[in-house]
Amino acid sequence: MEDHVYKIVELVGSSKQSIEGAIEAAISRAGKTVRNMRWFEVVQTRGHVEGGKVSHYQVMLRAGFTLEKE
Amino acid sequence: MEDHVYKIVELVGSSKQSIEGAIEAAISRAGKTVRNMRWFEVVQTRGHVEGGKVSHYQVMLRAGFTLEKE
Amino acid sequence: MEDHVYKIVELVGSSKQSIEGAIEAAISRAGKTVRNMRWFEVVQTRGHVEGGKVSHYQVMLRAGFTLEKE
Amino acid sequence: MEDHVYKIVELVGSSKQSIEGAIEAAISRAGKTVRNMRWFEVVQTRGHVEGGKVSHYQVMLRAGFTLEKE
Amino acid sequence: MEDHVYKIVELVGSSKQSIEGAIEAAISRAGKTVRNMRWFEVVQTRGHVEGGKVSHYQVMLRAGFTLEKE
Amino acid sequence: MEDHVYKIVELVGSSKQSIEGAIEAAISRAGKTVRNMRWFEVVQTRGHVEGGKVSHYQVMLRAGFTLEKE
Amino acid sequence: MEDHVYKIVELVGSSKQSIEGAIEAAISRAGKTVRNMRWFEVVQTRGHVEGGKVSHYQVMLRAGFTLEKE
Amino acid sequence: MEDHVYKIVELVGSSKQSIEGAIEAAISRAGKTVRNMRWFEVVQTRGHVEGGKVSHYQVMLRAGFTLEKE
Amino acid sequence: MEDHVYKIVELVGSSKQSIEGAIEAAISRAGKTVRNMRWFEVVQTRGHVEGGKVSHYQVMLRAGFTLEKE
Amino acid sequence: MEDHVYKIVELVGSSKQSIEGAIEAAISRAGKTVRNMRWFEVVQTRGHVEGGKVSHYQVMLRAGFTLEKE
Amino acid sequence: MEDHVYKIVELVGSSKQSIEGAIEAAISRAGKTVRNMRWFEVVQTRGHVEGGKVSHYQVMLRAGFTLEKE
Amino acid sequence: MEDHVYKIVELVGSSKQSIEGAIEAAISRAGKTVRNMRWFEVVQTRGHVEGGKVSHYQVMLRAGFTLEKE
Repeated sequence: MEDHVYKIVELVGSSKQSIEGAIEAAISRAGKTVRNMRWFEVVQTRGHVEGGKVSHYQVMLRAGFTLEKE
Repeated sequence: MEDHVYKIVELVGSSKQSIEGAIEAAISRAGKTVRNMRWFEVVQTRGHVEGGKVSHYQVMLRAGFTLEKE
Repeated sequence: MEDHVYKIVELVGSSKQSIEGAIEAAISRAGKTVRNMRWFEVVQTRGHVEGGKVSHYQVMLRAGFTLEKE
Repeated sequence: MEDHVYKIVELVGSSKQSIEGAIEAAISRAGKTVRNMRWFEVVQTRGHVEGGKVSHYQVMLRAGFTLEKE
Repeated sequence: MEDHVYKIVELVGSSKQSIEGAIEAAISRAGKTVRNMRWFEVVQTRGHVEGGKVSHYQVMLRAGFTLEKE
Repeated sequence: MEDHVYKIVELVGSSKQSIEGAIEAAISRAGKTVRNMRWFEVVQTRGHVEGGKVSHYQVMLRAGFTLEKE
Repeated sequence: MEDHVYKIVELVGSSKQSIEGAIEAAISRAGKTVRNMRWFEVVQTRGHVEGGKVSHYQVMLRAGFTLEKE
Repeated sequence: MEDHVYKIVELVGSSKQSIEGAIEAAISRAGKTVRNMRWFEVVQTRGHVEGGKVSHYQVMLRAGFTLEKE
Repeated sequence: MEDHVYKIVELVGSSKQSIEGAIEAAISRAGKTVRNMRWFEVVQTRGHVEGGKVSHYQVMLRAGFTLEKE
Repeated sequence: MEDHVYKIVELVGSSKQSIEGAIEAAISRAGKTVRNMRWFEVVQTRGHVEGGKVSHYQVMLRAGFTLEKE
Repeated sequence: MEDHVYKIVELVGSSKQSIEGAIEAAISRAGKTVRNMRWFEVVQTRGHVEGGKVSHYQVMLRAGFTLEKE
Repeated sequence: MEDHVYKIVELVGSSKQSIEGAIEAAISRAGKTVRNMRWFEVVQTRGHVEGGKVSHYQVMLRAGFTLEKE
């Protein structure tokens, strides 16, 4: 975190396999519209249950990206 | 909350009548620019006082909308 | 809150109309199986959005009821 | 919130009807002794249950009023 | 989270392998006595250490299940 | 906290003498219906005042007990 | 907590002996100027150390008293 | 923080220059009516923006003062 | 905070000199793309250390701006 | 808390008798290796249950000690 | 957590693969200088992003180890 | 925050002038015994009042330093 101005976006990603999978889904999808994403922080970890098993994990993130100087 | 990536926006709505009115004002205004809003969570409830009475309620929300797959 | 032992249950109620309606739905439904409910505390207020409008409110409560002495 | 010094009072109001009613009861009663109240913030929402129904709502507020310059 | 009343149970599961394993152990064991579990939220992640290594993970969850209408 | 699944109950105990007395009242009463209680965590400490003195202490606990394997 | 408006005062009491002693010191001293105190809630428990021993406990409270109707 | 009973007041001060200026404005104004103020704790730091610049800082404090023995 | 709908952006600014400098850097940079910014709230204050000295301060803000009516 | 630099250590003490006993056990043990301990703050109060009774209390503390100038 | 005094250390570990890997890196490295580590608790989960992908996970832990009696 | 293991120390610094001065006092003093300090996070900002003015600021920090690989 060097000497920049960052903007933060909040995202929720999901995955049937793992918490890391849900994080990567959110980061990967957001990367299509936001350049220069640098770090994230997990805000909340949730999930859904079907038939007595975890059907998917959902992770809420705050992710920071640099605003280029203009 | 199915298997999607959500983006979250934070909003403050206000109403002279009620807390629900302030929530609906925020959701309704944001719906003009954001499609596919799905859920919200109340972060803070405040208000203003004039002449010893509540003049309006203000509610801060986090609202999630789906990012379509591309 | 007199000199008793209380047990606490956590509940989520919902209503299309209002936050109070969601609280009352949870208290009313729980009252079918739990006697002696005495107080509640709001833990979280959320809701769902459909077509750019609030479709229903959801309120998470902690509600306390007395355990009778045996 | 302009360029003033505010003092904050914490209050609990109650109402048989609604959360807004409990807020207004607290603001109205405090207005009898405190002039210049300007804003409030909800700290906690609770209530009592009798006979399986909500008997009244209780809302704890922090309310700010201006200290006049002397 | 549709228009239902949910009851919430708090659980701690554990696993020698992973955080996801601890979540699944709790959900699976609770599913033997609670029907209709729908979602969970991670409250706390802990673990034990033996011989300088993680011996098992422990995850505290809040899990919600629907109360059927009667 | 070994390799088990725990369920958590939330309780409020009270005592005219002390905080420890309020904790013990809650644990002792709950022990009549729940076997295998193992640990507790204090969530909140409150009390009542009568005639300018503390009339009783009230302590809210989260207590964990093991679910036997079936 | 019946159907009243309460005002809340925040206090810190101290005692060389115990946490309960610190609470009682605060409640007792405040009772000299505030009538109708009804309940308290512990906000923070601290203390001082001298010569490797606890020299006194300090407890911060929020205490509620009824505002009489006028 | 020696062996006294303290009462706590909550204040908001503001300054066009700095966070420290806002703290000092609140402490200085409150000192006109409260004797024996001893310490403070910052609860929240906010501010206003005009024309894309910070127009003033606002800091919410909890400040403790000793109640003299009577 | 009058009767408007606000949207909130989260930002991180940095400065080699001071916390106020970091806040102003974030507000100033964001003001290039967001009109009508009105207030901010400090969420977190961090910094970097080089050679045993603070090399720069980093402040995370939530800043609110009005959405014009359409 | 005068004009010093403090370092903080986090400790957990336990006692079969009381919360104060657990605090004193932690302070007393730490005093064997840390000089100049000045204050503490309770972070968490927990305990163990055996045979339906509290077997011991455990209290987590943050304790501050002065770093002498060199 | 038996009848001991524990000291707590706070650590940040990192891993390119997983959250569990970051926890194990911190526990393993700390085990080189601290004997008798017994448990940990996750305080924060963060990570870095490079080229639109997670480059590594970082997990902040509080880990407790027993102080032997002397 | 690259791919390292960090240890965290908690510190309180103080200054008669400013919050930044208190942070720098803590970082500077700790730098005499801890090498490789990299970042800090403000946990709490407090201060003392004498004669109705701020006599000094006190800031509690969590500061991270790298543990070298062995």
